[in-house]
Amino acid sequence: MNIKMIRYLIGITLLIEAGLLLFPLIVALLYGEDPLPFLITIGVIVVFSLPSVILKPKNTRIFAKEGFICVAGTWVLMSVFATLPYVLSGAIPNVVNAFFEAVSGLTTTGATILADIEALPKGILFWRSFTHWIGGMGVLVFILAILPLAGGQNMYLMRAEVPGPTKGKLVPKMRNSSMILYGIYIVMTFILYMLLLFCGMDMYHASVTAFSTAGTGGFSVLNDSIAGYHSPTIEWIIAIFMLLFSINFNLYYCALIRRFHEIKKNEELRVFLIICLISTVAISINTWKLFENAGDCIRTAFFQVTAIISTSGFSTADFNLWPSFSQSILLLLMLTGSCAGSTTGGLKISRVILICKGTLREIRHVLRPKSVNVIRLDGEPIAEDVVRSAIGYLALFVLLLVSTVILISVDGFSFETNMTAAIASLNNIGPGLKEIGPMGNFSYYSSFSKLLLSLNMLFGRLEIIPMMVLFSPFTWKKVREQKKRSNKKFLRHLKRHKENTETK
Amino acid sequence: MNIKMIRYLIGITLLIEAGLLLFPLIVALLYGEDPLPFLITIGVIVVFSLPSVILKPKNTRIFAKEGFICVAGTWVLMSVFATLPYVLSGAIPNVVNAFFEAVSGLTTTGATILADIEALPKGILFWRSFTHWIGGMGVLVFILAILPLAGGQNMYLMRAEVPGPTKGKLVPKMRNSSMILYGIYIVMTFILYMLLLFCGMDMYHASVTAFSTAGTGGFSVLNDSIAGYHSPTIEWIIAIFMLLFSINFNLYYCALIRRFHEIKKNEELRVFLIICLISTVAISINTWKLFENAGDCIRTAFFQVTAIISTSGFSTADFNLWPSFSQSILLLLMLTGSCAGSTTGGLKISRVILICKGTLREIRHVLRPKSVNVIRLDGEPIAEDVVRSAIGYLALFVLLLVSTVILISVDGFSFETNMTAAIASLNNIGPGLKEIGPMGNFSYYSSFSKLLLSLNMLFGRLEIIPMMVLFSPFTWKKVREQKKRSNKKFLRHLKRHKENTETK
Repeated sequence: MNIKMIRYLIGITLLIEAGLLLFPLIVALLYGEDPLPFLITIGVIVVFSLPSVILKPKNTRIFAKEGFICVAGTWVLMSVFATLPYVLSGAIPNVVNAFFEAVSGLTTTGATILADIEALPKGILFWRSFTHWIGGMGVLVFILAILPLAGGQNMYLMRAEVPGPTKGKLVPKMRNSSMILYGIYIVMTFILYMLLLFCGMDMYHASVTAFSTAGTGGFSVLNDSIAGYHSPTIEWIIAIFMLLFSINFNLYYCALIRRFHEIKKNEELRVFLIICLISTVAISINTWKLFENAGDCIRTAFFQVTAIISTSGFSTADFNLWPSFSQSILLLLMLTGSCAGSTTGGLKISRVILICKGTLREIRHVLRPKSVNVIRLDGEPIAEDVVRSAIGYLALFVLLLVSTVILISVDGFSFETNMTAAIASLNNIGPGLKEIGPMGNFSYYSSFSKLLLSLNMLFGRLEIIPMMVLFSPFTWKKVREQKKRSNKKFLRHLKRHKENTETK
Repeated sequence: MNIKMIRYLIGITLLIEAGLLLFPLIVALLYGEDPLPFLITIGVIVVFSLPSVILKPKNTRIFAKEGFICVAGTWVLMSVFATLPYVLSGAIPNVVNAFFEAVSGLTTTGATILADIEALPKGILFWRSFTHWIGGMGVLVFILAILPLAGGQNMYLMRAEVPGPTKGKLVPKMRNSSMILYGIYIVMTFILYMLLLFCGMDMYHASVTAFSTAGTGGFSVLNDSIAGYHSPTIEWIIAIFMLLFSINFNLYYCALIRRFHEIKKNEELRVFLIICLISTVAISINTWKLFENAGDCIRTAFFQVTAIISTSGFSTADFNLWPSFSQSILLLLMLTGSCAGSTTGGLKISRVILICKGTLREIRHVLRPKSVNVIRLDGEPIAEDVVRSAIGYLALFVLLLVSTVILISVDGFSFETNMTAAIASLNNIGPGLKEIGPMGNFSYYSSFSKLLLSLNMLFGRLEIIPMMVLFSPFTWKKVREQKKRSNKKFLRHLKRHKENTETK
């Protein structure tokens, strides 16, 4: 395994994180707050990562395994360093709580342990929402855009960080693909920012809300989340942008270069929009009596549908008080998530489509064991191992979900709370039902459960496999063996050298 | 499709059901109750099925599809006729409720809509528990034991009715296999019956309890279920027998013919026993404070673990009042179920093992795309499509579970109730949590939900695929096309005949 290259790549990513910390630093200075927490964090990161970055390794070749370890390692360390400002500023003195909040930010989960958000300094809150934006598109994708890496290998990094079962390169050169993705991301965030300014938000609120929406994270700087702005127009804008950020970014590129037929034949987009429409209609009908007029009802239903399916988790209503049919629909949306190649979490619609088609084929296979059925997506045949891994992903997800529910149930909360906490963390949504609903928070859970849920968020953001590889003892056993072997080789070499000199 | 043969087989099975109805008839007569409901039901069944049975079809060949339709059709019709005694006797006047109770009986679910069970006539209660015993091993397996069918085709029936991913034939002749299975089933039930008599139960209680335990159903004739007998010895005996009936019956045959190494290398049995042990210990520790002495605590924990993992659903305690950690463990057991080839429901341990091994392999595959990993069970390689269909089964299960939860949530119960109702019905367990816990019942649900849950029980008992095939419009479209084709052929034949005669 090419440990040097892994360390090099992780080092660079962390330095970028240090650079990004300048933004909240500036905000803190502007509002006359203490800039030290950010300065110290930047210093710590630089000291930590500079040694691995100074020398670019000669051998830059990496393979799938290195790609996974690199991405998973980056995310774990980035989360650790993102914790520092919270702790150092005294905003979240408890280290476990601060780590939970940092992971929740970077993974665009949006689950919080804070009860009174508005009491925190503005610089810290800016950092909190900014982590959503950083984590939304992924930092390694950004590196790919700026770093000249050889052809095949950056594919492994991209594959590990960008969610969803199928990833087409936009353009032959991966570096250009990353640039295009980030370009679209920045432009869309900026448009949203301008619209929010136009609706009367100040620059601070507009920027943090735009960051949280773009990363489909869900952190808000108000205790009442988006409901706190008391503006139907703002709610509509955010809802629509949550929807837009849930769509595969490749499609925006297709729109830009006028390949509209690609958008037209995209099955995932079609299914996604149909699910949003049906859910909104069903919830509107089901919650009709709770609202004074139709406008409020439809807007709130649409907002909550997009907030949950985009795995943002913003709220304009306490859906804990909704009828259980509406809650069940939201729960289904929590599971499916949105389109692959967007900033959202969850299983992803395309994976759900593959799972459905795969199981239907299984039934057909039982009836006619000799028939060969190729599964198609967007009219094109899908490779067998993509289908297999989509269904395998569901199995992995179920196994992780069940284990999490059992382990956190030690804290004594209701099954509903535990179940939705596990789903909300694994699928990077944020709020769940009951104690951890839109008006609640995760602070009641024990430190053990909070760490477990934080891990879950990382598992979910990177789609399980990279984290599994990072934590697999098998991976590191091999590395140790490799080291031992090279040590032995060295000793043998020494011995032979000695013998040679002796015979001479 | 060989419709005639399907009708013939279904007809015979229904006639056997009519024959089995003689037992509750005798019980009713013994207790001086009205025998008419049973007599009428027998009459209706005979009139309904005699026409399809009188003539054995010349073409007895059936294939996989016919096997599924035959088994699924049999189970649906058997449930319909099993409903009649409840309705005719006035014990359960509501037809939907009666159908729910009948399906719950035959599928060995044990979910009830009755609040006051003890108020029902003894003959009806006998029939209720007896349906568990009938459904436990399956009626078509019984037919295979008595009917001389040609080699390959009874395999299709067996495969559709006996649960679990892998089914080995015990002996080369399927007919003998069925006889051995039923022999073991009858002998074990009889031993349990004798033990219960020995513990002071009268013949009536001993027989109904033995039937419910053997079928791993869970219907009891007392309102307080097994707790109503107030006897630790009886609780231990039933718990141990629930465990015994959860083990693959093939292993008992291996023990009989002294092939102990087969038992020793059986992975499923080992994992099953380890799960039972760990769960019992964990629940004992977790519920320690709720009991007065260690004996009560361990016995109750062991009883509930075996009751849930065997998908019987008997109760000696209201686990609604237990800490949520214990509840979560029970929920996990609800999902896994027991061994394949037993009378239990659920995913089955061997399938869970295959799913775990399959997903682990998926991770390995991502790291080394070119490596070939064969999955082994009991040390022997497993065919690729068995692994695939195990994971596919999980996907199907999840899809059915989620749809059920959403559809029944219209009734307004809590998520916990709906979720456990869906699992309890799909995995043939019986009780769930909250409103449908050990002390509750399903009567509060709407008729629509009850019918849906009844269907779920049938889906679960036959492991989804056969029912899917029966209800698939595709299946019947083909049959209609077949008929149309043969009609056209006949018309063409007629026309040609006419032309021939005209030219002459």
